[in-house]
Amino acid sequence: MNSGWVNDSNAALLTDLYELTMLQSYFDAGMNGTAVFDLFVRRLPPTRDYLVACGLEHVLQYLETFSFSDEAIVYLKSLGKFSDSFLAGLSELRFTGDIYAVPEGTVVFANEPIVEVVASLRQGQIIETFLMNQIQIATMGASKAARVVTAARGRPVIDFGLRRMHGADAGMKQARAFYIAGVSATSNVLAGSAFGIPVAGTMAHSYVQTFENEIEAFRHFIRSYPDSVVLVDTYDTLQGVQHIIALSRELGPEFRVSGVRLDSGDLLDLSRKSRELLDGAGLQDVKIFASSSLDEFAIDDLLNAGAPLDGFGVGTHMGTSSDAPFLDTAYKLAEYDGKPKMKLSQHKSTLPCRKQVFRETRDGRFVQDVIAVATERLEGEPLLLKMMENGRRTSMPENIETCRDRCMRQVQSLSSEIPYPVTVSPELTRLASAFRK
Amino acid sequence: MNSGWVNDSNAALLTDLYELTMLQSYFDAGMNGTAVFDLFVRRLPPTRDYLVACGLEHVLQYLETFSFSDEAIVYLKSLGKFSDSFLAGLSELRFTGDIYAVPEGTVVFANEPIVEVVASLRQGQIIETFLMNQIQIATMGASKAARVVTAARGRPVIDFGLRRMHGADAGMKQARAFYIAGVSATSNVLAGSAFGIPVAGTMAHSYVQTFENEIEAFRHFIRSYPDSVVLVDTYDTLQGVQHIIALSRELGPEFRVSGVRLDSGDLLDLSRKSRELLDGAGLQDVKIFASSSLDEFAIDDLLNAGAPLDGFGVGTHMGTSSDAPFLDTAYKLAEYDGKPKMKLSQHKSTLPCRKQVFRETRDGRFVQDVIAVATERLEGEPLLLKMMENGRRTSMPENIETCRDRCMRQVQSLSSEIPYPVTVSPELTRLASAFRK
Repeated sequence: MNSGWVNDSNAALLTDLYELTMLQSYFDAGMNGTAVFDLFVRRLPPTRDYLVACGLEHVLQYLETFSFSDEAIVYLKSLGKFSDSFLAGLSELRFTGDIYAVPEGTVVFANEPIVEVVASLRQGQIIETFLMNQIQIATMGASKAARVVTAARGRPVIDFGLRRMHGADAGMKQARAFYIAGVSATSNVLAGSAFGIPVAGTMAHSYVQTFENEIEAFRHFIRSYPDSVVLVDTYDTLQGVQHIIALSRELGPEFRVSGVRLDSGDLLDLSRKSRELLDGAGLQDVKIFASSSLDEFAIDDLLNAGAPLDGFGVGTHMGTSSDAPFLDTAYKLAEYDGKPKMKLSQHKSTLPCRKQVFRETRDGRFVQDVIAVATERLEGEPLLLKMMENGRRTSMPENIETCRDRCMRQVQSLSSEIPYPVTVSPELTRLASAFRK
Repeated sequence: MNSGWVNDSNAALLTDLYELTMLQSYFDAGMNGTAVFDLFVRRLPPTRDYLVACGLEHVLQYLETFSFSDEAIVYLKSLGKFSDSFLAGLSELRFTGDIYAVPEGTVVFANEPIVEVVASLRQGQIIETFLMNQIQIATMGASKAARVVTAARGRPVIDFGLRRMHGADAGMKQARAFYIAGVSATSNVLAGSAFGIPVAGTMAHSYVQTFENEIEAFRHFIRSYPDSVVLVDTYDTLQGVQHIIALSRELGPEFRVSGVRLDSGDLLDLSRKSRELLDGAGLQDVKIFASSSLDEFAIDDLLNAGAPLDGFGVGTHMGTSSDAPFLDTAYKLAEYDGKPKMKLSQHKSTLPCRKQVFRETRDGRFVQDVIAVATERLEGEPLLLKMMENGRRTSMPENIETCRDRCMRQVQSLSSEIPYPVTVSPELTRLASAFRK
């Protein structure tokens, strides 16, 4: 039994079988002209007004190391679906195309290309599944997290989602996407180590239960971590807060507990009563953090009601983007061998040609995006940048803090107009309608 | 920038920071007695009547290889939160405990332990996050897929979900879980290679678009794959079917196309009209497959309406379990140092002690589960088996076909009574209420 971990040396095989059967058929037909593919989101989920593009860095890493291992070729041969001459070519296939993309942390909308691939038909096609998988998880994650961060109104949001995220890779890629979207820290230690993200966390209920009683548990934890945030709801939340107060008296000037965490019950009521108890004991500096099934809606409600909360641990709902657990991503052929291409299926039609998106800003606010043909020069900032040329990066990987700053600045620059106006340039409209005729 | 891939050598660090701070504190307190932890689902999602337990195989692989690398220890030291003596111990930590679990493919219900860990407190605690992450994604996936397979009433279901699943690991672990739940094949080639699952797939719209016109595209694809299923909706579905008919006349006895795939529009109407056209042309053997945002509800509706469909490609909704994108999984301390333990938080209380689940069957149907204390001997089949003793497997990894057979047999044995009756044994009830007092 294989462990089933994905890595740079087997990622080329993390693809849909039809990518390979199509490649075999193109090979048989001797077709390998230059293709343009767009990766975009067709429609935003009902509960999203914007998306935060994310995931490009790992796509570029994949493209740089793309190659079928000997083991992969042996497996493909065993399927009996591919010719030896085709497999010989496949074993030498590398990605040598160009990549245009919006930088990570950029706010994007429906139909705007997040990544545009210009490559030989074979190269552009085989990478489809991986690009969609990775751009979706990161963009979906960053888009959800940006909303949670906005709802928290400057209070720190900590990612607690690893245990409920969909597998190990979601745990890694989303922790990174969340940080780019403005989340303050993650509980995921490996993500902290891999991406240089701050890590945070204190104790679980099981810790408290291990001891004879709650105050004994708190006493021990504080001995190891004096300025910790303490989980107070294992047995009874307000009793837990009383235990903190008792410890403050016991420890006197040594007492340095920084906060309490409420993880169940009526968080509005419990946060108010906890604040009262703490303030009444002179513990104004002890903060109150909340967790327990939070999302942007719950946080907004709590803060609107005046809940005296200083920060949030957000797990399941952010970690699974539970109100919108997928994006309607598409990866579509826009041009082949110099000819514009379009799909006309009902409700799923696409736009032809290589593109550019121009974003107009007024008084520091985004006012309009125009999706245009790449060769057009319109007003506003072009969002798609050349990230890879002939299979090589055009620049060093971006620092994660740069992406994070971009995202937080852009979310603040969002127009209050909903839906945000995105139009198609007259030139692109003309080309698309010429195609329909 | 790290690639962020998880593998056996860094998986120990794929954990919440609080697991490590708790371990430091236990270390400082000199506490490392034997602990029992239960991994279970607290409540079923509203759209689930049962769950299919899955993910154990990768948990056992993780436990067998569990170890903090030197690199991990260096990173942890850099956080300034851990003592050198603690980190020295951590670098030597291996999993040497016992694992009781239900075999993969077993039908389970709320509050029934899926995995029970008996280990030193340190070992049992540090593995929490990984176990929850992996058991959740596989169990959630298998549980959704079992419903889709049931809805398809014997027709093949193909997993097309990789591109919309949450990251690469979900793509792998869910393809495996889906197969165990009765799905016929996956489009994910790496999963096929890693787990020995059948792979399937044909062509995308982009293939059709690459050619001058649709019939030319079909002609080429059939040349490479004569018995293929052909995608007919790139421009106009019924026109696409007409192209297939034209090809059957062109090719005569050489024509071996096995089916058409409809991927947009009104699938009921289009499948009926396609069937009529094909039958009218004497192509009764050409099957009709459907895809496009399918799930168990849509498949059930189509088949109830008599849609002449022979199989289904199911992607996004199964791949993200979109109606229930997470399970209310918990990993709770049930015993420490020989003493039963319980959490009493509002709506989140747990059951103490090491457990067993007894399943009673009558006339080949499951009639009742009883959650009992492990030492009890009740009627029915005990579901929890010893899978690991002192850190070593008690038997060879199960063949995936064995798990698949188990699942399909158990789903058929499900009682029609909903909710399925799960009770707590008098002995366990007594222990739990003694604890509350």
